[in-house]
Order: sequence, then C-alpha cells, then structure tokens
Amino acid sequence: MAKKVNAFYAQSGGVTAVINASACGVIETARRHKDRIGKVFAGRNGIIGALTEDLIDTGRESEQAIAALRYTPSGAFGSCRFKLKGLEESRAQYERLIEVFKAHDIGYFFYNGGGDSADTCLKISQLGEATGYPIQAIHVPKTVDNDLPVTDNCPGFGSVAKYIAVSTLEATFDVASMSKTSTKVFVLEVMGRHAGWIAAAGAMASTKARELPILVLFPEIPFDRSKFLARVDALVKSHGYCTVVVSEGVKGADGKFLSDQGLRDAFGHAQLGGVAPVIASIVKDGLDLKYHWGVADYLQRAARHIASKTDVAQAYAVGKAAVELALKGRNSVMPAIRRVSDRPYKWKIEVAELKDVANKEKFMPRDFIGEDGFGITERCRRYLAPLITGEDYPPYENGLPAYVRLRNVAVPRKLAGEFRL
Amino acid sequence: MAKKVNAFYAQSGGVTAVINASACGVIETARRHKDRIGKVFAGRNGIIGALTEDLIDTGRESEQAIAALRYTPSGAFGSCRFKLKGLEESRAQYERLIEVFKAHDIGYFFYNGGGDSADTCLKISQLGEATGYPIQAIHVPKTVDNDLPVTDNCPGFGSVAKYIAVSTLEATFDVASMSKTSTKVFVLEVMGRHAGWIAAAGAMASTKARELPILVLFPEIPFDRSKFLARVDALVKSHGYCTVVVSEGVKGADGKFLSDQGLRDAFGHAQLGGVAPVIASIVKDGLDLKYHWGVADYLQRAARHIASKTDVAQAYAVGKAAVELALKGRNSVMPAIRRVSDRPYKWKIEVAELKDVANKEKFMPRDFIGEDGFGITERCRRYLAPLITGEDYPPYENGLPAYVRLRNVAVPRKLAGEFRL
Repeated sequence: MAKKVNAFYAQSGGVTAVINASACGVIETARRHKDRIGKVFAGRNGIIGALTEDLIDTGRESEQAIAALRYTPSGAFGSCRFKLKGLEESRAQYERLIEVFKAHDIGYFFYNGGGDSADTCLKISQLGEATGYPIQAIHVPKTVDNDLPVTDNCPGFGSVAKYIAVSTLEATFDVASMSKTSTKVFVLEVMGRHAGWIAAAGAMASTKARELPILVLFPEIPFDRSKFLARVDALVKSHGYCTVVVSEGVKGADGKFLSDQGLRDAFGHAQLGGVAPVIASIVKDGLDLKYHWGVADYLQRAARHIASKTDVAQAYAVGKAAVELALKGRNSVMPAIRRVSDRPYKWKIEVAELKDVANKEKFMPRDFIGEDGFGITERCRRYLAPLITGEDYPPYENGLPAYVRLRNVAVPRKLAGEFRL
Repeated sequence: MAKKVNAFYAQSGGVTAVINASACGVIETARRHKDRIGKVFAGRNGIIGALTEDLIDTGRESEQAIAALRYTPSGAFGSCRFKLKGLEESRAQYERLIEVFKAHDIGYFFYNGGGDSADTCLKISQLGEATGYPIQAIHVPKTVDNDLPVTDNCPGFGSVAKYIAVSTLEATFDVASMSKTSTKVFVLEVMGRHAGWIAAAGAMASTKARELPILVLFPEIPFDRSKFLARVDALVKSHGYCTVVVSEGVKGADGKFLSDQGLRDAFGHAQLGGVAPVIASIVKDGLDLKYHWGVADYLQRAARHIASKTDVAQAYAVGKAAVELALKGRNSVMPAIRRVSDRPYKWKIEVAELKDVANKEKFMPRDFIGEDGFGITERCRRYLAPLITGEDYPPYENGLPAYVRLRNVAVPRKLAGEFRL
C-alpha cells in the first residue's frame, strides 16, 4: 500500500470567479482519501507561502466552509504574481521548495494557475526526479485568458465570457435606447493581453434572433484606424448606434499596445489599462459621435454572481481530477478538458503532459475571427456557446452573495531561519 | 360614466434596469381597464415621439412581450435627453404636444423619468388646465441617482446599488487575493453627478461579519488629497489592500469636477467620465502603490441580471399606481414610495404632488456619511439594506438573458406636416 503523505495546493497569477471551485474539488476529493492523503496545506499567497514556509492548514476549515469555496470568487488562500525562473537561475528557490516539502512530508504538489505556473510545476516535477525526493507535481488549469494549449478551454474563462456577453448585451440595449439624442457609441474595454477570447465573448450578445451592432477589436488583428472608423460610421448609419468591445491588448500596426502605461508586472507582462478612452477619443475625433466608455477590469474576472454553470462544473472537475491523478501515481501532468461534442455539449477530463502545456500560448484561430477582423465566425460561436451556458448562482444573505472567508490558520513552522524572496 | 380615452407613455433621460418594469406596470394595468382606457401609445424615443407624432401602438405587442418588459433592462420604446423649457420659452412645443394628444384622443399622459421630466409633466398638466384640454399628467418616478424628493427612494436605484455592492464585494475579494505581490488599491468609478447614493452602495459590501477595507468618495464631500492619501495608506498598512469607490461627480475644494471632459448633455449637465484614472494616478504619485481601476458606466444601470427584487417590485408598482391614479381622476401627481418600516422592510405607494417633486434634488443627508467623509453610517445602512435585498433573475436562453425586443409598430400619423425640434 502506498505511503500516506500530505498535499500542498497553491493558487497562482490572476484569480478568477471559479479558481476556488478548483480548490474545493482538490480539498473535498483529498478528504475522501484520508488513507492516502494526510493534510492538505495551502500556500498563503501562492508559491510564496511554500518558499517562506507560510502554510495554511485547510483541515481547520469546516466542511461547509470548503463547500462554500465552490461559489466564492477570488483566491481564498491568496495568490501571487511570482515567477520562478529556470532551474539553474533559481536553483536556491527550487531547493527551498523541496526543503519545505520534506519538512512537512508533502508528497503531492497541486499548482492552480496558467502557463507560467505550468512551467513552474514542470520544473518542480523534474527537480523531484533529479533529487530523488518523491514529489508528484500536478498542474490545475486556470486562466480567464483561455490561452492554455491542449485543453479545449480553461476554467475561469467561461465565467468571464458569460459576464462580458451579458454585460455587452445589457449595455447595447442601453445605448440603443439613448441613441436618438445622446450616446451613439459605447466602448467596453475587456481583459486579454495577447489572446482575444474574452473580447470575442462580447460578440455573443448578438444572435440571429436578436441581431445587435457590436464590433470587436482583437489583439490578434492590428488596429486600422480608418477601417475601424468606417465600420463604426456604417453601423451608426444603419442602426443609429453601436457597441465596441475592445481587448486591452489591441496593438497598432507598429506592434505597440494602443494604450501602454509603461508598467510591467512581475512576470514581465506589460500592465495595461485605459484603451477604452483611447478608442472613444478616436471615435470622437474621427466621427464626432457622442460616446460613453466602460472598463470592466477586475469586475469581469471576479463576477461569480453571473458565473457559467459549465465553467463552475469544469473548475471543480479539474481540481478533483488532479487529486485522482496524484493517487494514480501520475507526475508532471495536468487534467485537460476535451470536448466530445458541440451540440449537445459533452466534455470529459483527459490527461495532458506538462511539457506540452508549459510556456505555450493559444491564440484565437484566424478562422474564429470574421474576415474583416471586427467580429466572430460561426465556428467561434459553436466553440463559445456551451462555455457560457447555464447559471450557477451563489446563495445570498441580505442582498449580497454569501461568499466565504476562510480562517486560514497557519501551520507551525518546522524550519529555522527566514527565506528571503 | 367617464369617457374612454387613450393613454400616452414615454420614457425620459438615462434608462435603468427596471424602467421597463414600470412600463409593464402601466400597460398591464391599462389593459385591465379597457372600459376606461383605449389604446396605450408609447413615444418613440420619449417625448420626441409625441412632438414628432411618432407614436408606437403598444396594443400590437403580445401579452408575453409586455410581461417580458418586467425583466428587460433599457428603454423598450427608446428614451431621450430632451428638456422642454418654461411654458413661455417653449410654448410651441407644449402646444404641439396638446395638438398631438388631441389628434390621437389622448387623455392620460404618463411620463417615466427623473426631476427634469417631473417638471415637464407638471407643465403639461398646467397647460391642460390653462387651455381647457382635459389631459391628466402623471409622473412615474425613475432615476438611478435616487435624487428625487418626497419618495423614499427611486425605482432604478435599488438595482444599480445592488450591482455596485456586489461588484465592489467581488472586486475587493479579488484585490485581497492579489495584494501580496500585485495590486494594492482598486478604484471603481460609479455614477452619481451630484448625489453620492450609488457610491454609498459600494460601502454595503463591507458588513460586520465580513469587514472589508472600502473607502468611498462622495460628490457631497470636497476631495482632500492629503486626507485621502492618509486613509489609503492606513488601510493598505492595516489590511494590505483597499478598494476606493469613487463617484463620477467628486469635486475638489474649488468646486470643479475632478475629471471634467468639458462636454455637456442636452439637459446642461456636465458629461463626466474618467475620474477613476485620476484617483489611480493620485494613489500612484502619492504612495507609489500598484493600482487597478474600473469604470462601470452603462454596465451598472443596465445590469438587469443582478437587479434588486425590491426595486423590480417597486418599479412595477409605480407604473401600476400611475394608471390607478389616472383612473381616479388625479392630475399633476406622482406615485411615491413611502417606507413604513425598516426591519422588516415594509413600504407602500402614496401620492406626491408634482409641484413638490419637480426641479428638486435630494442629496445624501450628512448623517448618512461617516464623520471622516469616507464611509457610510449605520443610519445609511438601515436605509440602503432593504433596497438591495432580494434577487429577481431574468430567464435565460443559451447562456444569455432572454430580454425582449418589442415590435414597436408605428401609429398612422393624423397631422399634416412635420414638426421641427
């Protein structure tokens, strides 16, 4: 019989409306296998919690509190933007992780994040093998950007997509009402540094039965001012108004972000924001139309109140599957979602090798974007439709969602000295 | 027995998540009194539809379509920002209205709007009396700004308040997760030109059981840069992060909007937008903290998907009551909401005289705002709590709310010639 060891779980990078549903899947599944898995420790603020030996004992949380993670957005244990570099460059950090894992008898490492985290997870699995310390590293996919390869879609994306589709629908109805004497163009800025998946979701607000003048600006398509203005002008002439859904990552023909504030995050990504007012100004200067603009920012990825039921189910499923893979002795893998059929939508969990996932970005296929570069194709609609389907409302108390805050009790330290990040 | 006449209904000013619920209340109630009310005509794009004799025959809409208005945001017949001035100044327009009303045998005028619309409604009732044309003018209250006097609250406000409270809760959970290595301050810009009611709702996300570091900037309190920075600094030191909910109408000590784009709307109000990046820059310059900012803009007032159940019920009730007041022969009045008790929340509809409503703005009472000017008091909480209580979800189809688009069939014109606005 396999030895009973403890597990470590951490959340990484930008949080989502459903990353805690994955945590719920990990912890609830581990609790059902107490013969094989001892405690589940969580990293306080992600991998930093492991490096600094700041572990949370999830065993101190009630069954109800863990169950409530399924409907609580954000990262319940704290997340971080902290990228471990290559094994040689960051050797001290990797060795520290192994030291902490040893000290706390941790044999399972579950890392819940995007592409960068998959890379860290891969390196930990390799280090385990190289040093002979028996650690099984399993990546749990999460990213609103939907840019991980192999998996059909990423948990976190479906809910942000649903939020953007619903918000675009509602705002477009609003501007339609006002357009006679007031706003003609509404600009909504959405997330997506390099991949236009979230922006594409805005176009889902328009359907055959309820066609709406919505124009999408993708990061995959270089911005062309005059072509854009001609399209806005045509839509305003035909419909009286239009909505522009613009990805934060839209670039000009020169490859530069339309709105680069010059900041960079810890992963070295450009820190953006504020492309909506840039687009609004272009509309104002070019066509002299009255505009309004909104920036969804954190609201979109935290919007658990309008999460996709498909997304919640998948987020839970990848957490559960990660533990099951660990129990089967797997290492250096990630549960991936495979689409079995579009209509009716059927999906199942398969196993992806981390080497195939790490450090790869999945962009929108060109045939998902309409020929003119301002909309989505029928193929894209077929892909997106099931991901935004179904509602999974949280319970409410006094008008507000009853989101849980965990106790997050610290595990007593076993190692002497501090580790400096 | 009273003569059977037609009714006219129009939507005015910025639309809301529930103004169509009021339309639903008006039309469904009128349909139950076919002995007294003939047709219900709606103005296409508000009062402009009456001036240009562009009327919509709501009788051409099915029962199901009218029922769906209860859960459809925006203005189903189109709204407008078009203010009629004084009787002397705009005599031709008022006379034109009476001419159109006469031509279509309209005896009831229902005007669904805010303070400016209440003034127009009052003048039409006066003109009816002065010219001897029997028109009963009833105002149906609507405004997300919650700034109408007499009524305890305004339909439209409860839903935007709920949206802002929920969004602030979700975004605050998000920034809490990220604050260790990333964003420390999240800034959310909300509507409210002169009154801070909507901004106040952001503070509702923090409760005794789940205290959160949320700071509110009200238009009623002149912005004090150093006091503000000291508060942000203190919250980030104590909690690691904070959320700033800022009203678009925040002004400096000089009385100028912190972010005035120099545009004005048809009512002469300053057209704002973009105070969030201003506040974010102040945080960056003053404290060098990493920030994110969002601008809810139309998303907040169109967010029917998270409407307050109280608000939907009240929006419907004022529409219904308006028709009942008309049938009782009342003129120059508005159904107002009176709060009977806080806990349990009980309310009823009373009658307000339009002369007491028109052209008056209700600001936040000073004792609703905390002493330091950055939060709300217990009294304010008692006031706001019932208004955001209860969920009233729309039905969904394929992942999106099944909002209705009406046929909006035009009524044949009876008058010769065009009327120029």
